[in-house]
Amino acid sequence: MYVTSQQLLVATPPEETRMYHNPFYTPEVQGPYELISIGRLELERGGVIRDCRLAVATRGTLNEARDNAILIPTWFTGTHQAWLDTYIGPGHALDPSKYFIVIVNQIGNGLSTSPHNTEDESIAMSRFPFVTIGDDVVAQERLLREHFDITELFAVVGASMGAQQAYEWAVRFPDRVHRVAPIAGTAKNTPHDVLFTQVLLDAVTSDPGFKGGEHTSNEDVEVGLKRHARVWAVMGLSTEWWKQEAWRDLGMETPQQTVQEFLEPIFASLDPNSLLVMGRKWQHGDVSRHTDGDLAEALGRVRAKVFSMPISEDMFFPVRDCAAEVDLIPGAELRVIDDLAGHFGLFGFVPSYMEQVNQHLEELFAS
Amino acid sequence: MYVTSQQLLVATPPEETRMYHNPFYTPEVQGPYELISIGRLELERGGVIRDCRLAVATRGTLNEARDNAILIPTWFTGTHQAWLDTYIGPGHALDPSKYFIVIVNQIGNGLSTSPHNTEDESIAMSRFPFVTIGDDVVAQERLLREHFDITELFAVVGASMGAQQAYEWAVRFPDRVHRVAPIAGTAKNTPHDVLFTQVLLDAVTSDPGFKGGEHTSNEDVEVGLKRHARVWAVMGLSTEWWKQEAWRDLGMETPQQTVQEFLEPIFASLDPNSLLVMGRKWQHGDVSRHTDGDLAEALGRVRAKVFSMPISEDMFFPVRDCAAEVDLIPGAELRVIDDLAGHFGLFGFVPSYMEQVNQHLEELFAS
Repeated sequence: MYVTSQQLLVATPPEETRMYHNPFYTPEVQGPYELISIGRLELERGGVIRDCRLAVATRGTLNEARDNAILIPTWFTGTHQAWLDTYIGPGHALDPSKYFIVIVNQIGNGLSTSPHNTEDESIAMSRFPFVTIGDDVVAQERLLREHFDITELFAVVGASMGAQQAYEWAVRFPDRVHRVAPIAGTAKNTPHDVLFTQVLLDAVTSDPGFKGGEHTSNEDVEVGLKRHARVWAVMGLSTEWWKQEAWRDLGMETPQQTVQEFLEPIFASLDPNSLLVMGRKWQHGDVSRHTDGDLAEALGRVRAKVFSMPISEDMFFPVRDCAAEVDLIPGAELRVIDDLAGHFGLFGFVPSYMEQVNQHLEELFAS
Repeated sequence: MYVTSQQLLVATPPEETRMYHNPFYTPEVQGPYELISIGRLELERGGVIRDCRLAVATRGTLNEARDNAILIPTWFTGTHQAWLDTYIGPGHALDPSKYFIVIVNQIGNGLSTSPHNTEDESIAMSRFPFVTIGDDVVAQERLLREHFDITELFAVVGASMGAQQAYEWAVRFPDRVHRVAPIAGTAKNTPHDVLFTQVLLDAVTSDPGFKGGEHTSNEDVEVGLKRHARVWAVMGLSTEWWKQEAWRDLGMETPQQTVQEFLEPIFASLDPNSLLVMGRKWQHGDVSRHTDGDLAEALGRVRAKVFSMPISEDMFFPVRDCAAEVDLIPGAELRVIDDLAGHFGLFGFVPSYMEQVNQHLEELFAS
C-alpha cells in the first residue's frame, strides 16, 4: 500500500494520540447521526479546523421548492437527541411531515469536531482553537448550501446557545432566513452571563485532574465536573422549582438525590474541553460584533419574523433581557413561556412547556 | 514562675500553634471592638468552645429601665463595622441617642472565636466544631444577660445570616424580644440556598492550598477565595445591576475591573475556615429545628412584631420566600426594599436603600 508523506504525518502511533473514547458521544447514547465534513474552516478569531465535521441528524423531506427547511443548532452540552426526544415529531410544531428539519450539533459539543475526538493533533485537547457563534453559523451555512443545496431557511429554531446561533443567522444572513425562534437566549450575552459562564468554567478547570486540558479521560476530572453540575443546580433550575419540590416529577426523593443522581452524572459524563469550547463561545456570543458594538444597528438588520421566547423563571436569561432585544428588532414579538423550572425548562420536564412552545412556533410558522 | 499542668498543655511552642495572623481581622481594619468571653459554650450539634469570645461593639447608652437595647448579629463575612458604617448613627433609625445598640460578631466570623484565631488547639483550624445559628443566639443571650444585665430586647435587627439569627431569637425567646427586623433573609433556609451555599464552599475547599483547613494563611487559598468571589458576583448582585452598569457608582469602569479590584480582594482577605464555619451555619439555619420540622408551628410561637424586609432583586432570598414566612407569623408584615443590587444591596451602595430601611425600622420601632 502506497503511503503519502501526508499520511505518515497523520499516522501517529496510538500511544501518542490525544483522542480518548468517551461513551457519551456515541450513537448508542445519542441515537444515530451523520458526520459530514465541510472541509477547512478558518475561524473568526484565528486558527483553523482543517477538517471540520458536523454531526447532523435530519427528519422529514426537503420539498421541491427547497423552502421548507428548518435549522436547529444545539445548546450548551446539548445534542440533536435532546431535540428529537422532546421537540420534534407528529403533533409538534416541528413536524417532519411538513418540514425538512436539520439539527446540527455545534462545533466542540463532543459529536461534531471537538477537542477529544479530532484526529488532527494540532487542535486536539488543550490546543483546540477558540470557536465563536459566528464560526458555527458559517459552518452551518456551508453545510446547508454544499451538502443539502439549501440557500434559504424557512426558520431557525434554537434554545439557549442555540438562540445565540439563531440570532447570528438573522443578523448575518438577513435575506436567507424567514423566521427565527430564539428560546431562552439572547443576541448579545449580558455582563451577568459572562460572569456566570466563568463560574461554570472555573469549576472544571480548577480540578487538578483537568491538567490544563490534557486529561486522558473525563473521569480524571470527575470532581470538577460534579462541581460544575452543582453550579447548574443553582442557576439552571429556579429557586421555586427546588422549593416546590418539582424534582419529585423526575422520580427523585430529595434535593440531594436530585443533585447526586440526576445532575452530577449528566455533567460528569461530558468532556471537560468540550465544556470549555462551548462555554467560551457562549460567553462571547454577541451579534453586535458585526456593527462595532452597536446592538440596535445589528438587530435593526433583521428581516426575519422573530418570536423571542424567554422562560419565566430563568435565573440568567431573564425575561426583561430578552424583552429589551425584542424592542430593537423590527416586528419581533416577545412570547414568554411560563415554566417553574427556569432555564432547564428546556428539557421539557412538564407537558405545559412543550404545549406553549408548540403554540408559539405554530403561530410563527403560519406567519 | 509556677506552671500548672493545664498551662503546660496549652503552652505549645510557637511553631506548633496553628493560629495565623490575618490583618483583615484587626481593629486597624475593622475599627475598635471588645472581646468578651462568655466562657464555655456547649454546642447544639456536639463539641464545645471552652472559651467562647464574642467580638462586640456598642453604641448609645442603656436606659434605667433597661428596655432600649437593640441587638444586631452579623451576616456572612460581615463584621460590626459594616453596620457602623452604613446603618447606625444620627439620622438613622438605629440612633444611638435613643437606643443601646449591641453589635455581636457571629462565632467563627474571624473576630469572635474562630478557627484561625483561637488559642485552643483542640478547635483550631480544621478542628473547629460545627456551629449553628442557635449556638450564636444562645451565646448572645448569655452575653447580654451576664455582661450587660439585659434580659429583654427592644429589637433584634439582622440581615442575611443576621436575619436567620433574628428569627431564631423570635422563636427561641418569644417573650424576650419585642420587635424583629429580618432583612434579606429567611427563618428556614430554602433548598436552593442549601445548594447555593455548597457552591460557595466548594469554590474554597477545592483549592489544593486549602489543605483540608490546615492552610497557614489565607494567601495559600487565594485562588479558591477568588473563585468564591466570582460566585458572589453572579448571585450577590443581580443580573440587572450588572446590565445597568451600576458598578460605575463604585468608581469601576468595567465588570471585569469590578470583579478583580472590588470583589476578589474583599473575599481574598478572609480566612477560608471562617467562610466554612459561617457557610455551614447558614446552610443549616432553620427555626423549625425546635418543632420537629414544622415551620408553621415554630413561626406561630413568635410574639415579637416582625417586619420582614426582602430586597426586590435578591437572587437567592427572593421576595416570595420571605412572603411565605410572613404569612406564618402572627401580625408580621412584608416590607419589600426596592434595590437594583440584589442581596449586596445590604452594603447600601445607593442612598435609597438606607432611606427605605430607615423608614421601615422607624415604623417598627414606633409600634
